[in-house]
Amino acid sequence: MYIKLKQIGSIKTPYTDHAPYQPVDDEKDNFRIIVNNEYFEGLLHLEDFIYIYVIYYIDRLKKEISMHVSPPWTNREMVGIFASRAPNRPNSIGISIVKIKKIIKNEIVISGIDVFNDTPLLDIKPYIKELDSKKDANYGWIDGLEGDTDHLLLHIRGIPHGY
Amino acid sequence: MYIKLKQIGSIKTPYTDHAPYQPVDDEKDNFRIIVNNEYFEGLLHLEDFIYIYVIYYIDRLKKEISMHVSPPWTNREMVGIFASRAPNRPNSIGISIVKIKKIIKNEIVISGIDVFNDTPLLDIKPYIKELDSKKDANYGWIDGLEGDTDHLLLHIRGIPHGY
Repeated sequence: MYIKLKQIGSIKTPYTDHAPYQPVDDEKDNFRIIVNNEYFEGLLHLEDFIYIYVIYYIDRLKKEISMHVSPPWTNREMVGIFASRAPNRPNSIGISIVKIKKIIKNEIVISGIDVFNDTPLLDIKPYIKELDSKKDANYGWIDGLEGDTDHLLLHIRGIPHGY
Repeated sequence: MYIKLKQIGSIKTPYTDHAPYQPVDDEKDNFRIIVNNEYFEGLLHLEDFIYIYVIYYIDRLKKEISMHVSPPWTNREMVGIFASRAPNRPNSIGISIVKIKKIIKNEIVISGIDVFNDTPLLDIKPYIKELDSKKDANYGWIDGLEGDTDHLLLHIRGIPHGY
């Protein structure tokens, strides 16, 4: 069964040739979501939320999909594609949690997001504390990796670092 | 621009005629994700995670889409569709966070999920503590509603209650 979705806007970022693995913070309002005019009214009261889910289509992928992947910052640990956040998935849907800085008409200025410029927007949902913030969540197989957990977290969070 | 996705499995639930608004807990292993055989190997090491994101297509919708919605448990508060979790969205992508109970071959036994039986599965992603659990998240416009916050949370969490 195939499912047809439509682009409802675009994500604007400074990344044209490479993008980080995960969102990083930004002080320059370089990251924006532009919602197509016909959906503008759907943003009513969105600014009351601190965080939102941004759901998008990862459109700049050409490689074939493999069921097993090895995240680049691990020592060749092989995990299933569904146990990873790798972009090259059976359905290349991306989900990022970002902070809203401000909303001006149909533009949402957000904290950093790990996607290429002009990535097609599919949906926006509010991140609701009670539903989405799981205090007892874990790190899964990442916890079992060799090395300093604090260092691995820099990779997970996409923070550039020199070691 | 249109985007074509494919069904990669099915979500099995006891809900054939109505479903709760949000996942509820279940003791009977009534909730399962069946991943199509060709994607089975993509589940490697998924069981190391406590929580996963389940991404699905909300296929049993017929109503027209409105940019403003009024969640049924509010006193006619109108909010934008993107400031709500209502299923009737421009792209009817659903996201639920569930606990993994066990994985047997290509079946993932999960905690309760708020979807109809045989809902098409689009993707599974690990819920990673550092990335996804935002301690400083809020309740957005829900906080401004009249009434007892604890009571509103029962609605948000989809817990049946008699008052």
